[in-house]
Amino acid sequence: MKILFLCGGIGKRMYPIEEDKFMFKLIGKELILHHIDHLKELGLKEEDFVFVCNPANIERLRELCGEDAGYVIQKRPKGMADAALTAKDLLHGEEILIVNPNDVFESSAYKNILKKKGGDSVILAHKVDKYFPGGYLVIEDEKIKGIIEKPREGKEPSNLVNIVVHLHRDSNNLIRYLERMESEQDDVYERTMDRMMKDGLDFRVVEYNGFWTAIKYPWHILNVMEYFLNRINRHVNEIKIPESAKIVGNVIIEAGAKIFENAVIRGPAYIGKDSVIGNNALIRGSNIGDRCVIGYSTEVKHAYIGDDCWFHTNYIGDSIICAGCSFGSGAVTANWRFDEENISIKIEDVKIDTGLDKLGCIMANNCKVGVNSSIMPGVRIGANSIIGAGTVVTRDLEPNKFLFFKNEQMLEENRLEIKDKKKERMERIKRG
Amino acid sequence: MKILFLCGGIGKRMYPIEEDKFMFKLIGKELILHHIDHLKELGLKEEDFVFVCNPANIERLRELCGEDAGYVIQKRPKGMADAALTAKDLLHGEEILIVNPNDVFESSAYKNILKKKGGDSVILAHKVDKYFPGGYLVIEDEKIKGIIEKPREGKEPSNLVNIVVHLHRDSNNLIRYLERMESEQDDVYERTMDRMMKDGLDFRVVEYNGFWTAIKYPWHILNVMEYFLNRINRHVNEIKIPESAKIVGNVIIEAGAKIFENAVIRGPAYIGKDSVIGNNALIRGSNIGDRCVIGYSTEVKHAYIGDDCWFHTNYIGDSIICAGCSFGSGAVTANWRFDEENISIKIEDVKIDTGLDKLGCIMANNCKVGVNSSIMPGVRIGANSIIGAGTVVTRDLEPNKFLFFKNEQMLEENRLEIKDKKKERMERIKRG
Amino acid sequence: MKILFLCGGIGKRMYPIEEDKFMFKLIGKELILHHIDHLKELGLKEEDFVFVCNPANIERLRELCGEDAGYVIQKRPKGMADAALTAKDLLHGEEILIVNPNDVFESSAYKNILKKKGGDSVILAHKVDKYFPGGYLVIEDEKIKGIIEKPREGKEPSNLVNIVVHLHRDSNNLIRYLERMESEQDDVYERTMDRMMKDGLDFRVVEYNGFWTAIKYPWHILNVMEYFLNRINRHVNEIKIPESAKIVGNVIIEAGAKIFENAVIRGPAYIGKDSVIGNNALIRGSNIGDRCVIGYSTEVKHAYIGDDCWFHTNYIGDSIICAGCSFGSGAVTANWRFDEENISIKIEDVKIDTGLDKLGCIMANNCKVGVNSSIMPGVRIGANSIIGAGTVVTRDLEPNKFLFFKNEQMLEENRLEIKDKKKERMERIKRG
Repeated sequence: MKILFLCGGIGKRMYPIEEDKFMFKLIGKELILHHIDHLKELGLKEEDFVFVCNPANIERLRELCGEDAGYVIQKRPKGMADAALTAKDLLHGEEILIVNPNDVFESSAYKNILKKKGGDSVILAHKVDKYFPGGYLVIEDEKIKGIIEKPREGKEPSNLVNIVVHLHRDSNNLIRYLERMESEQDDVYERTMDRMMKDGLDFRVVEYNGFWTAIKYPWHILNVMEYFLNRINRHVNEIKIPESAKIVGNVIIEAGAKIFENAVIRGPAYIGKDSVIGNNALIRGSNIGDRCVIGYSTEVKHAYIGDDCWFHTNYIGDSIICAGCSFGSGAVTANWRFDEENISIKIEDVKIDTGLDKLGCIMANNCKVGVNSSIMPGVRIGANSIIGAGTVVTRDLEPNKFLFFKNEQMLEENRLEIKDKKKERMERIKRG
Repeated sequence: MKILFLCGGIGKRMYPIEEDKFMFKLIGKELILHHIDHLKELGLKEEDFVFVCNPANIERLRELCGEDAGYVIQKRPKGMADAALTAKDLLHGEEILIVNPNDVFESSAYKNILKKKGGDSVILAHKVDKYFPGGYLVIEDEKIKGIIEKPREGKEPSNLVNIVVHLHRDSNNLIRYLERMESEQDDVYERTMDRMMKDGLDFRVVEYNGFWTAIKYPWHILNVMEYFLNRINRHVNEIKIPESAKIVGNVIIEAGAKIFENAVIRGPAYIGKDSVIGNNALIRGSNIGDRCVIGYSTEVKHAYIGDDCWFHTNYIGDSIICAGCSFGSGAVTANWRFDEENISIKIEDVKIDTGLDKLGCIMANNCKVGVNSSIMPGVRIGANSIIGAGTVVTRDLEPNKFLFFKNEQMLEENRLEIKDKKKERMERIKRG
Repeated sequence: MKILFLCGGIGKRMYPIEEDKFMFKLIGKELILHHIDHLKELGLKEEDFVFVCNPANIERLRELCGEDAGYVIQKRPKGMADAALTAKDLLHGEEILIVNPNDVFESSAYKNILKKKGGDSVILAHKVDKYFPGGYLVIEDEKIKGIIEKPREGKEPSNLVNIVVHLHRDSNNLIRYLERMESEQDDVYERTMDRMMKDGLDFRVVEYNGFWTAIKYPWHILNVMEYFLNRINRHVNEIKIPESAKIVGNVIIEAGAKIFENAVIRGPAYIGKDSVIGNNALIRGSNIGDRCVIGYSTEVKHAYIGDDCWFHTNYIGDSIICAGCSFGSGAVTANWRFDEENISIKIEDVKIDTGLDKLGCIMANNCKVGVNSSIMPGVRIGANSIIGAGTVVTRDLEPNKFLFFKNEQMLEENRLEIKDKKKERMERIKRG
């Protein structure tokens, strides 16, 4: 069989993050590799994988996922039908599993759909307790008769939401259907499935009750991070840890990391290769990439930190800091509003409630933050931007900008008569 | 006998603090309860107490001091004579002890005045070494012949200053005198006492040399705090304290508190119920209320912290922070002037020298301070006010305000050619 | 013999530092005393030293170097020839060693030149690997035939650079030559030497390959500091160090110092007499003077700190902080540029590349820095200046100034409806 990974799309709502969502590294491995590992555990091999890429990511994907897999380029991100048709020559009429690698779920999802017998197609569905704005399956006699996209709350035909992990026994048949479908309109794949169901093809469901997140908005990275962190077991590589440093609970520390005195890493937490955790640093509930420096007296709490990030006396809470960023001493991310309401973020001119009352900043690659700067909750910073020292950042910053506050100063003569009371104060200190 | 607590007054000079002074909680108990406890130790009972309240505090007092005590409302804060007259029906002609519960003194003061034999009235007096602007007793043949209010320095008739802990053997007689006194003028009570002395009633003195502070200005809370802290014995409730945390000297830690790694609490210090002391926090010479969070890398030094206050990477020194306040990461209280002079505070248009060269801020209930803000020495912040991120607060702030600095910023293209030297710098770090 | 120390000059390029370079205290002793100690180890005595002073430093030098030495005042800093002529009466025709005490080198340099036999004069020369803008020796038949000042790169007559440690066997002869030389022009001493060589006097060279730095610019103090620190052996005076504090590697801690919990001092480092190292402080690669307070949660990294400096929650990196300075809580020195280029400093209108990509600030005596202020890389602060709270200092500040940012603020009513979620958040915290 073939696993068709849909890697050609572009996540506009992920701004300021420019990387593909499936390229996010969690506990040391890109999301796409987590998918591949799950599938390999079930017996699939590199040559079974077909990646529908875009021109910008094909090389990196090939490098990461191996030469034996198949790669095709989808020139424009035109959707699932186009993706499948683009990959047609690599499918050889085999059984195919179409996967959206931006979704995160447990390996049992793969296991259950792959072992499912019978039917022409099988769809993975998440059983939901409460309304979720997805595609709901219409079930009759244990078969799927249709998918209704975002029904109004209370109007759901079932509690089963479509996850893009779709098994089609006969890829030739799927391709034929797709080719016949009117492609000028949207949702070609969805309409094709509908057509196939109407034509009496046997669509079956595999229910799945485990963790599932479709990464749609940048803050979903934090949910996904939590999922991965909550599943790790303690594994501290053979590194020298000073007696005064404490590694508490489920923590992974990769090889080459260096931990300094009085640092505390409270699990769940992941520390990437060759990273440095400085004196008095506190890390909890966070994923730290490779070659990071979490410097002196820095707290990183419930944050995703990419590779090669440097911090020094900072508070980074509930934030997503992509690779290559640096924070000067005393710079902090504010992570809650004075009114303690949820933080909202404007996406394509619509204010979206993140559902989070604790959210720091979302910073794309290679940004630099000056000393004593403050970034307000939910602010997004575009890649390669710089924030000057002592700046309070209240609004989003585009990529490749330099933002600094208008530093108007007053200069006067120093006319103070200074009593130097240090001696006296020193005595108070020495007394304790 | 009856103990008449004067609780009807309003402390204007305590701005921005709105609470009654005797309601300040010290080492876990309101001042008024400290008074009551002292008296109960000497055999007095709840039904012996009479509280002259005001409409705003009667309910809270009743709740705190018990249903068996007597409560009356003094409609307007018209002084001691009015207070005594208001309570007249509850005194039943018994011996009465009139107490100003805003004064703080040792229990021996009560003990000594209660065991004093003879006389018609007894007045507690503090023996002073140096001039203090109070009421001085005129003594002849071991009897008090008058009280002179604020004589000029060098003109004091004795070294005995009147403390409002006054015993009158016959309350009926006192009431009769008070009722006969012209009440349109000020100082009715004082003039009544004068009249009684002139009429030959026998006023005796009980000298007291222990600690005494009349809370007049907000910074006196710090003196009173020191007094209480200096008398505590070490008592750490059965809580789990990490090995790396240190509790040094006379420290009380109440039940439910949680202490994190590398925290240091250096006595004298009091930590209230259910409070959290975060990693690397340092607390010394301070009173921390209930349910506080002294978060990561925060120092609280010689400060009074009310209930439900939250801190995170702050320095709070020589400050009074009332209940329900929050400080964002990196916000600090400055606590000394560049010229190292004493800090002065304007009260009713008069600049008062606090006598302190170390004084931080005085913050009323439920304020919020943004990240990286700075509050200058002696600044008073009214209740329910908010200080925006990165603001330097140089002046007093009224209640219910939102203060933030005018954040003018400059936005440019980032034209820097950035040499990424992280690899090289990392090697330097790893070398040590 | 006589050792003639040239102490009359004024180091203009050392701005903002006003002290004589040879008066810098390193590992507890002024540079000039390090010179004297080296010479005393070789058998020289106090009466062998002659100091050419200026009116401002003669008293301090006398106090420091002893009454038995000779002192003369050079009225104006007119150069080496004038210095030698000024001291003429104290030389008694003896052999003299002329030393510029602003140069730092190993004691072997003294040893080698003093044991050198023969010749009329001997010059110490540093063998250089690469171009250095100094005076190069012209060598013929093992004798010095001339000195060429700052030849163009590639045009050096040898790889031997003149260090001002010059031995003249006959000081009378030197004086005669100096007196005869035309003194209206510059470089009288250099021209005199040239004349002497041309007259056939025998100038010999002593090659020296050890450490040598001519302190020319303020940041050279950091090089000199490194040199001294790298040579120290661990020596911790008998002070009580809490178990949780760590002293790692080659560290000197002088008597009377006090170390608090969780402090880390990582060698090489020097802590002066009676200094206080506060809780959680980190000191590495630094020289801390006497009576300093490195307060709570402060990092001092690769910095020179003079006597009587006070810090509290600061980051001081790659900086030179002269005596008597204070930093408020949260004030930091930024020590690298966003573009990671070397830091340049303008000296006499010429931008000089310091050669350092890490350089903090250079601060003269008795400055005070307000809370949460930020000082940009390479900024120089003149003596007795004050920086207000929350100021970002991007340019040099003259002495005796008061710099503060124009604090424009907005005051609004607080209209936020505040949900107090502390209880809920507290539960999350307590869960860990």
